Amino acid sequence: MSERIPHWLEKQSEVNPHHIALESPDGGKKTFGELRQESRQMAQALMKSGVQKGDHIAFLSDNDLNYPVFIHAISYIGAVVVLLNTRLTSAEISYQLKDAHVKRLFISNSYEVKAEKASKNLNTAVQKVSELPQELADEYDLKRELALDEVYTMMYTSGTTGKPKAVMHTYGNHWFSAIASSLNLGLRHDDKWLMCLPLFHVGGFSVLMKSVIYGMTIHLMEKFEPSLVNKALITEGVSHVSVVTVMLQKLLEDLDGKRYPDHLKCMLLGGGPVPVHLLEQTADRNVPVFQTYGMTETSSQIATLSPESAFTKIGSAGKALSIAELWIDNDDEKQPGEIIVRGPMVSKGYYNHPHQRDAYLRTGDIGYKDEDGFLYVVDRVKDVIISGGENVYPAEIESVLSDIPGIREAGVTGRKDERWGEVPVAFLVSESPGTLEAEEVLDFCKERLGKYKLPAQLHWVEELPRNASNKVLRRQLFSLLDQED
Amino acid sequence: MSERIPHWLEKQSEVNPHHIALESPDGGKKTFGELRQESRQMAQALMKSGVQKGDHIAFLSDNDLNYPVFIHAISYIGAVVVLLNTRLTSAEISYQLKDAHVKRLFISNSYEVKAEKASKNLNTAVQKVSELPQELADEYDLKRELALDEVYTMMYTSGTTGKPKAVMHTYGNHWFSAIASSLNLGLRHDDKWLMCLPLFHVGGFSVLMKSVIYGMTIHLMEKFEPSLVNKALITEGVSHVSVVTVMLQKLLEDLDGKRYPDHLKCMLLGGGPVPVHLLEQTADRNVPVFQTYGMTETSSQIATLSPESAFTKIGSAGKALSIAELWIDNDDEKQPGEIIVRGPMVSKGYYNHPHQRDAYLRTGDIGYKDEDGFLYVVDRVKDVIISGGENVYPAEIESVLSDIPGIREAGVTGRKDERWGEVPVAFLVSESPGTLEAEEVLDFCKERLGKYKLPAQLHWVEELPRNASNKVLRRQLFSLLDQED
Repeated sequence: MSERIPHWLEKQSEVNPHHIALESPDGGKKTFGELRQESRQMAQALMKSGVQKGDHIAFLSDNDLNYPVFIHAISYIGAVVVLLNTRLTSAEISYQLKDAHVKRLFISNSYEVKAEKASKNLNTAVQKVSELPQELADEYDLKRELALDEVYTMMYTSGTTGKPKAVMHTYGNHWFSAIASSLNLGLRHDDKWLMCLPLFHVGGFSVLMKSVIYGMTIHLMEKFEPSLVNKALITEGVSHVSVVTVMLQKLLEDLDGKRYPDHLKCMLLGGGPVPVHLLEQTADRNVPVFQTYGMTETSSQIATLSPESAFTKIGSAGKALSIAELWIDNDDEKQPGEIIVRGPMVSKGYYNHPHQRDAYLRTGDIGYKDEDGFLYVVDRVKDVIISGGENVYPAEIESVLSDIPGIREAGVTGRKDERWGEVPVAFLVSESPGTLEAEEVLDFCKERLGKYKLPAQLHWVEELPRNASNKVLRRQLFSLLDQED
Repeated sequence: MSERIPHWLEKQSEVNPHHIALESPDGGKKTFGELRQESRQMAQALMKSGVQKGDHIAFLSDNDLNYPVFIHAISYIGAVVVLLNTRLTSAEISYQLKDAHVKRLFISNSYEVKAEKASKNLNTAVQKVSELPQELADEYDLKRELALDEVYTMMYTSGTTGKPKAVMHTYGNHWFSAIASSLNLGLRHDDKWLMCLPLFHVGGFSVLMKSVIYGMTIHLMEKFEPSLVNKALITEGVSHVSVVTVMLQKLLEDLDGKRYPDHLKCMLLGGGPVPVHLLEQTADRNVPVFQTYGMTETSSQIATLSPESAFTKIGSAGKALSIAELWIDNDDEKQPGEIIVRGPMVSKGYYNHPHQRDAYLRTGDIGYKDEDGFLYVVDRVKDVIISGGENVYPAEIESVLSDIPGIREAGVTGRKDERWGEVPVAFLVSESPGTLEAEEVLDFCKERLGKYKLPAQLHWVEELPRNASNKVLRRQLFSLLDQED
C-alpha cells in the first residue's frame, strides 16, 4: 500500500466546513473547519516544542473535545501516537512508555501525578497539552497527504495474560476499517454517532476515524452514565452508538420499558460474547442491536451482523465485512475452531515484536459458522477449560448462569482438578445478595448444561474484575477470593 | 497497490444472497446469489472455450441482464475485457480490436454482422455468448480474490479528435471510484440505481461496479426512452439515476410539470457543461440534480456537487471526491485554467501508450474554482477559440444561445478568420424551424456576450452531431454544412 490520500481533515474541512464534527452534552461544538484550524495550530505548537515526523509520543487524557484535536495534530506532523489507557497504574504506563520508545508524554491536566510517577525513571518528558508554548512552527511543514502504509497509532492490547503488546495501526488500517463499516451499516449525511467508550481504545478511536473519513458528527461523552446516555440517545438525534454488553444491560434497565426513537438506527455491540437472553430482550423491544466482532488488531469491527439479519440471527456477530475475510480453523467450519482473519484493516504487527504476524491473523478466539455462514463467537482459546478431555467454554456457562433471575453477572474460569484435569468454577454477582441458593443455581444449570460443564464451585462476589474495555478478566477471578480472605 | 480484496461478487453473494442485484422493466430479476452462480458458470464456459488469465477479449452487447454476467465472469478468470461501443462502425471496432491486441470478440446475437465485418482481416475470433459450449472448466480455477492493481477493463476514449486510446482500469480504480462516490452521496440498503446509459461507457459501467461493491440493486434499461424512464423513476422505488444533459432536458419535458417522488434522491448529471437555465429549472422544481465532473480516465466522477450544495451552487460540479484531488493550472484558481486531477480512481494510463501518464492527469478541460472552492467546468482546452488574442469558450456561447426561447440546442465552434485568427460560429436546432430570425438571436446575444464572443455566422441544422456519450462533437459541426450541399 504505497497509496496516498489527501489529508482527511483537510478534505472534510474543504467539503463540509460548517458541518458539526464534534459536540458534547454541555453544548460544546466544533465544526470540521474549526477542528482543522485547531488541529493545525496544535500541530504547529507541538512541532515548535520539538515533536518531529516519526517521533513516538504518548497521550494520556479523558474523552473531551480536545482529544480529537490532539489526535489530528499528530497526523499533520506524521508522528506516531501511543494511546494510553487512563485506567492503568503508573507502573503499567511506565512499561508501555519504555516498550514503545516514547520520547514525550502529553497529558491533560488531570493526569499530572500519574504521568510524573510513570516517567520518573525514564527519558520520557511529560508535557501538559494546555501548557504548550504559544509560538507556532511554520504551517508549510504540515502534511497535506496521508500515506496509507504509514503507522499512525499504537494501542496496547488489553492483554488478559502476559505482557501487553503495542498494536501498530497505519492510516490505511483505519481508513479501510471505516470504509468496510460504511459498506455494512450504510452512510447518511445526518448520521450522528454517540461515543461513550474511551477514545484510547480502538472501539472509541475507530469512531473518531469514521467521523473524519465520512464527515460525520460525534456526540462525545466523557464517560458512560446510563441515564445521560439514554437521554442523549432520545433527544439528540443520535443514529449510532457503540456499546459493550454491560453497558447495553444498564441502558435497558435505565430505559425501563420506554422505547428509543426511530432515528436510532444502530447500537453496535462489541467487546466479546453476549448472553443470548439479553439479545432476545433487545429484539423483543425492537432495539436495533448489531452484534459485532473485532479487536485492537483488526482496527475495531471485522465482522458485524447486517441490519437485515439483526433480528433473525440473534447471537451471531454476522459475516466478515466487505473487504475482510474470516475462517474457522476447522475442516468443518460449523464446528468450533480458532477464528482467523485477513484484510486491509488488520494491523501489520506489534511494535518490537517483528516476527509475530503472517498474512493471516490468528485471533485467539474460538468460533463457528452456522449453515448460512454466520459467525458465532464462542470464547477465547486461552480461556477454554479442558475437563476430562472435553472442551468447556466459559462463555456458554456464563450465558446460562446470567439467565437465572436474580443473577446480574457471571464469570467462569477453570481450576486444576486431579481427576478431570480442570473443572469450571463460577463467580456470581447477585442482584440482591442472600436471596438465591447455590442449589437453585445448580438445578437451573443441570437442565441446560451437560454434566461436565456444571460449575464445580460457586462463589458469590460483589463485582467481576474487568479491564478498561469492560471485558471480564477471567484469569483474575480467583484473586477475588484472596481479597475476601 | 498490491492489496487484494475478496472477490466482490463472492462477498455480496455471501452477505446479501437474496438481495436483488439486477432488475429490468420487463420483470426480469437476478439476486446476488443468482448473479454469482451465472457469472461463475459463464467463467467456466469461457475458460473451457480457451479464455485464460491475462487474455485480452472484447465484448459487444446492448444493455441487458446478461451484460453484467459476462463482466463478472471475466473477473473470475482474470482476463481483461475491452468494452466496445455498439454505435461504432465496423471499421472503428476493427481499429480497437487491433490496437488492444484482442484475441476473442464476444457478442450478443444482434451484433453478428458488425462483428464479422470488423474482425475480417484480423486474428480475432468472434463468438456469440449464447452459443458457448455447454462444458465447463473446473470451478477450482476461478478467482477468489481481486488484486487492486490488476487491469480489468479497457475503454476507448470517445476521442472527439485524433485516434481513440484505450484507457486501462484496474480493479482498484473501480473500487476506489465506487467508495469515493459513496462517501459523497451516502449509502443505504434500499438504494436502487436506474441505469439508462450504455454499460460500455464508464458512466454506466461504474454503476455496475457500485452495485457489486455496495450490494445495490440496478434497474437496468436497454436504452433511454424518456417516458419509460420517468415511469420507472416514479413507480419503481428508484433512488438514483445517471443522466447527461440532453436526457435531463427530455425527462423534464416528458414530466410535464409533475413531480418526482421523495425516494428519488439523486439525478447524477455528467457528460460535460450544462446550460445554467436547465439547472435553474430543475432547482425550481426541486429535482435533486447533482452535477458531476469526470471522464473515462477517472473511472467516472471525480468531483460531484454534494447534496448540501445542490441548490446553492448551481452550475458547479462541486468539489473533488473524498480521496481525490483537483487543481486548476493557474496561479489564481479563480481564473480559468486546465483542470488537473489525482487519486486512486485515476487510470494508470493508456494501453500501448506507455509514457502518457504522470502522477497527475491533465484532463484537457478548462475550469475554475469560485471563492468557496467549488469547481466550474468551462470547456475543453481543444475547443477553445482564440479570437483577437482572447480566449472564447464555446460552452459559454452555447449556454446563452440555448436560453433563447425557440432554440432547442446549440453547438459552437471556431472558424479561421484572417483578421481575428478565429471567430465563433453557431449551429442551432430550432424547436419549430422558420419561426426565429437570425437578427433576434444576435440581439439576444449582444445583451449577454462581449462583442468578440458574438457568433460570426449562424447555421440552422436539424440536429447536432454527438458521440456515443451524447457529447456534442464540435469538430464535426462544419461537416453538417457539407451534408446540406
